Amino acid sequence: MEPGKSRLLDAVARRVAGHSLEGPYYTDRTFFDLDITAIFTRQWLFVAVDAEVPEPGDCSTVEIGPYSVIVLRDDEGGLRAFHNVCRHRGARMLDEGRGSVGNLVCGYHKWTYGTDGALRHAPAQPPDFDRDCFALKTVHVRSVGGLVFVCLADEPPADFPEVAARIEPYLAPHELRRAKVAARCDLVENGNWKLVMENNRECYHCDGHPELLRTFFPTYGYTRDSVPANLRQAHERYLRADAEMRATYERLGLPYALIEELHERTTGFRIQRDALDLAGESFTPDGTAACRRLLGDLPTPRLGHLALHLQPNSWFHVLGDHAVTFSVLPLAPDKTLLRTTWLVHPEAVEGEDYDPGTLTKVWTATNEQDARLVARAQQGVANPAYEPGPYAPTEYQVEAFCTWYLARLREELRP
Amino acid sequence: MEPGKSRLLDAVARRVAGHSLEGPYYTDRTFFDLDITAIFTRQWLFVAVDAEVPEPGDCSTVEIGPYSVIVLRDDEGGLRAFHNVCRHRGARMLDEGRGSVGNLVCGYHKWTYGTDGALRHAPAQPPDFDRDCFALKTVHVRSVGGLVFVCLADEPPADFPEVAARIEPYLAPHELRRAKVAARCDLVENGNWKLVMENNRECYHCDGHPELLRTFFPTYGYTRDSVPANLRQAHERYLRADAEMRATYERLGLPYALIEELHERTTGFRIQRDALDLAGESFTPDGTAACRRLLGDLPTPRLGHLALHLQPNSWFHVLGDHAVTFSVLPLAPDKTLLRTTWLVHPEAVEGEDYDPGTLTKVWTATNEQDARLVARAQQGVANPAYEPGPYAPTEYQVEAFCTWYLARLREELRP
Amino acid sequence: MEPGKSRLLDAVARRVAGHSLEGPYYTDRTFFDLDITAIFTRQWLFVAVDAEVPEPGDCSTVEIGPYSVIVLRDDEGGLRAFHNVCRHRGARMLDEGRGSVGNLVCGYHKWTYGTDGALRHAPAQPPDFDRDCFALKTVHVRSVGGLVFVCLADEPPADFPEVAARIEPYLAPHELRRAKVAARCDLVENGNWKLVMENNRECYHCDGHPELLRTFFPTYGYTRDSVPANLRQAHERYLRADAEMRATYERLGLPYALIEELHERTTGFRIQRDALDLAGESFTPDGTAACRRLLGDLPTPRLGHLALHLQPNSWFHVLGDHAVTFSVLPLAPDKTLLRTTWLVHPEAVEGEDYDPGTLTKVWTATNEQDARLVARAQQGVANPAYEPGPYAPTEYQVEAFCTWYLARLREELRP
Repeated sequence: MEPGKSRLLDAVARRVAGHSLEGPYYTDRTFFDLDITAIFTRQWLFVAVDAEVPEPGDCSTVEIGPYSVIVLRDDEGGLRAFHNVCRHRGARMLDEGRGSVGNLVCGYHKWTYGTDGALRHAPAQPPDFDRDCFALKTVHVRSVGGLVFVCLADEPPADFPEVAARIEPYLAPHELRRAKVAARCDLVENGNWKLVMENNRECYHCDGHPELLRTFFPTYGYTRDSVPANLRQAHERYLRADAEMRATYERLGLPYALIEELHERTTGFRIQRDALDLAGESFTPDGTAACRRLLGDLPTPRLGHLALHLQPNSWFHVLGDHAVTFSVLPLAPDKTLLRTTWLVHPEAVEGEDYDPGTLTKVWTATNEQDARLVARAQQGVANPAYEPGPYAPTEYQVEAFCTWYLARLREELRP
Repeated sequence: MEPGKSRLLDAVARRVAGHSLEGPYYTDRTFFDLDITAIFTRQWLFVAVDAEVPEPGDCSTVEIGPYSVIVLRDDEGGLRAFHNVCRHRGARMLDEGRGSVGNLVCGYHKWTYGTDGALRHAPAQPPDFDRDCFALKTVHVRSVGGLVFVCLADEPPADFPEVAARIEPYLAPHELRRAKVAARCDLVENGNWKLVMENNRECYHCDGHPELLRTFFPTYGYTRDSVPANLRQAHERYLRADAEMRATYERLGLPYALIEELHERTTGFRIQRDALDLAGESFTPDGTAACRRLLGDLPTPRLGHLALHLQPNSWFHVLGDHAVTFSVLPLAPDKTLLRTTWLVHPEAVEGEDYDPGTLTKVWTATNEQDARLVARAQQGVANPAYEPGPYAPTEYQVEAFCTWYLARLREELRP
Repeated sequence: MEPGKSRLLDAVARRVAGHSLEGPYYTDRTFFDLDITAIFTRQWLFVAVDAEVPEPGDCSTVEIGPYSVIVLRDDEGGLRAFHNVCRHRGARMLDEGRGSVGNLVCGYHKWTYGTDGALRHAPAQPPDFDRDCFALKTVHVRSVGGLVFVCLADEPPADFPEVAARIEPYLAPHELRRAKVAARCDLVENGNWKLVMENNRECYHCDGHPELLRTFFPTYGYTRDSVPANLRQAHERYLRADAEMRATYERLGLPYALIEELHERTTGFRIQRDALDLAGESFTPDGTAACRRLLGDLPTPRLGHLALHLQPNSWFHVLGDHAVTFSVLPLAPDKTLLRTTWLVHPEAVEGEDYDPGTLTKVWTATNEQDARLVARAQQGVANPAYEPGPYAPTEYQVEAFCTWYLARLREELRP
């Protein structure tokens, strides 16, 4: 075994259950490279929404560690994904971002590919040049209820179809596949991607989110017995709202049961339809809808939120009036891109049905607050005096994330 | 032995006495990491002055390589130092700089520590959670005549108490412990921390310091026999001023004898009370005091300067009217923070007794001149064509610093 | 053999002829360091023109990887080159750029060297100090027809004198040795130095150079049989211009034959006098001369261009009215400096005989276009999904460059 590999296995073996991970997981280039290999080139990653590439030729380019992937709607309306690298001398094909193309033309020597990735033209080649050998390299891609995932592995995880099948009924009533993008925001956080994910798995820090806590119950992650004294009043409100919501979900036939399989499977996930506080409709100061036109054909905005968490790199809040998606992309051991996208009904009119500022305000503020906390955590775990400490009971999902993560490393490192 | 370690030992063994160090000592990340371990986690480091944390709850946070340390006045008025890392998930507690706190509260999940470091409150923990296991980790701290030192080692160097006892009588008459901070300046130099220290150990380069040379005798580092022709006139002035100063020191009972033990001990140091040129009182264009109110109860400003050099990271000029302290903190192989602090009598009034611009002018200019020289030295030693050259006799203190430094590396690397 | 070395040899052995190089050659720090050692400290490098240092004391300082070299005209009018490092404590002597000196004085401790590199003065040394031991370290330097080359090796490549002797007759009629610098431009490209050189060896990408293609025949690199249909008209024009030019060259006794020895020798090179389109005189929109005063004593501006390519780091276009030189200097695996210099007759008057904007316009635009292509190539080859692809026939000189480059690595790495 390589010495580097045994050092990594030792670290994994040393982990104390219930405690945070050692510093090097978050700061060391070797661990970062391992994360790219063991997690980001193996798993299905959430990178876009169908609504970003609605028409043939529409494309979106996303950076995944050292990789760059083009997500494209082909001429037949199907989703395609390709490595963003010309087959000639390797030049990058498309810049990062979104656009629309007829063919994919390399800017260097004009090698030209169809939307199916086939090489259509390479200038000035000899007669025996075989274009069929030089199609763009494909990347696995699929949409789950309007959410676009890619997988860089040759063989994607075997359990993803099952996960997708269990998630889709929750998403279906919101019809995200035909939604439209109302707003987008990229935020570079000064912390490791795992700190960004861990931060999202607990509300133990929610004191720092005054805008979010207008509607998001701070009792998230507590059981009835463990709710602390200062949250008991909120918990009472939650129980009443929860009872009402369950009745609504039953009446409308909306799936709502909690599924929580964060560490038991390759594609760890959690899904739950849950109540919100105040008007219970949306993430706004008084909880009323931020968009008048509701998603799909939903008959009422008072639906709380469908919370979906999908490892390794995403979470979602899908409401009656809008949806907001979060994609986490590692840039460096201490730099992570958080990409947030807000979706509304395709016919919702900006300025009439919704105001983008109101729509995005809570999560923009919450993201920035989280970014400050993540930066503070990154600074601390980079200090050699840091030693892993114990998670509180309400942080059990962070523990589950770490357990899942280490299982992935073990799989990668096994002889 | 690890291969890296043997490479380092080879370099140490290769050193030619009387010659500058090889380039990698100043440029190589491995040597930088070794310096942090062998020097900055072993030695007592000058990081603050008592005057920065006069009242209970006052705190100052300082970065030492990858470490961050909180220096704090506790509720009983004692000095404390802690690692700036929460015992929960490791978040940084305090930002760099100075402030005042009641308790130390982690911004992430509100774990709350007293000024004694004890964990007072951790929200929502189970009944068996033992707060006593999670006090902030302590760092050794002590004040020597108003100068605050910390030591990251479990066992600090055994000789420091003796060094402190020999230094304190020199410092005592200036009463720095109850002085006040008149000004501060942080300067990031583009050079290795050793180049900053070496530059300070010789006046061979003093031509480049016109403001300083108004009062600082350029004959520093020369013996009577070795004074070059162009400095003989200055040397005559020095001898006259020196004779007068010795009489003054004797009359006032001020310790003044030179102690120079730069490489003979773990805590290398040098102390000397010495004459200044012109009015002989302070670092000003005509040598007169920059602060009307004198330090302590000193009866006259005409006292020259008490020059203290303390390895690995500090030097000081303590005068009748003010004191100026210098703390050197490594940031990267080629980046070093020089932190300069000016102290005056606690009752000296800005604008009446002293003008901050006049007080700080000479050393601000001198620091900037030195920074340019250090940057030039760093650029040169990074060139593979550089080979160590011979120190001039007047650079004997630089040689002593290198000897001391290599002894520390040998101790660290010995099998 | 060191493990690192065997990894490099494996990569060299793995190379498929006719295909681009693997990604790590362009992105990996180990390969970059190997390039500095195997190429840039072994070969003659084009770094300046005689016209930059015409008078005694004139000097130009150039960075070559971690090295810094002073090119200097000495008191006797000879060319000298020295490592830009003081022999005392290694401080950098001169900043990058051009200047004029009487002596070379180190800014740190005033060690003073003559223009012959001898140490003339070192202050305050003991009587037995031997100045003769501390002359500046020399670097090989020579001018070839007014183009200045340095070599960092102890023993420069044995074949350079022969190459120089074959090149000089082509250059001689243009009398660059007494030309003057009309303009200079430094451009930092976001790509490996080899991508910059490779980009220059083919016109397969020339569609992206509209300004250059006014006069530069896009058929460069094609044989009569391989000219693509869209370039046939241009090729007809080229054949006519070529025939006329050959007659002119014969009449004027100007050497013009193609010599192409890109990979057959240590100092790979290519030289050819060739026609330009339209007026055929210069790189201008209509092909007419950009400088009224011609180089040397040339009787006509209608001379096309003398194209010289000299590995590892330079190319040149020498015309009737001006010359333009290109020097490629590696800064990092993904950063390269391209230094462009325009030369005109020493008595040509700016504003009368030439307008600097017109003179520099085409190559400034072309350089910027190339920089964008090189950056795109660098981004692509850094993607793990990149795999080497086949060169088109018209890219045969890129293939030759790679072959030459790998031969240099093999020489360096052989046991």
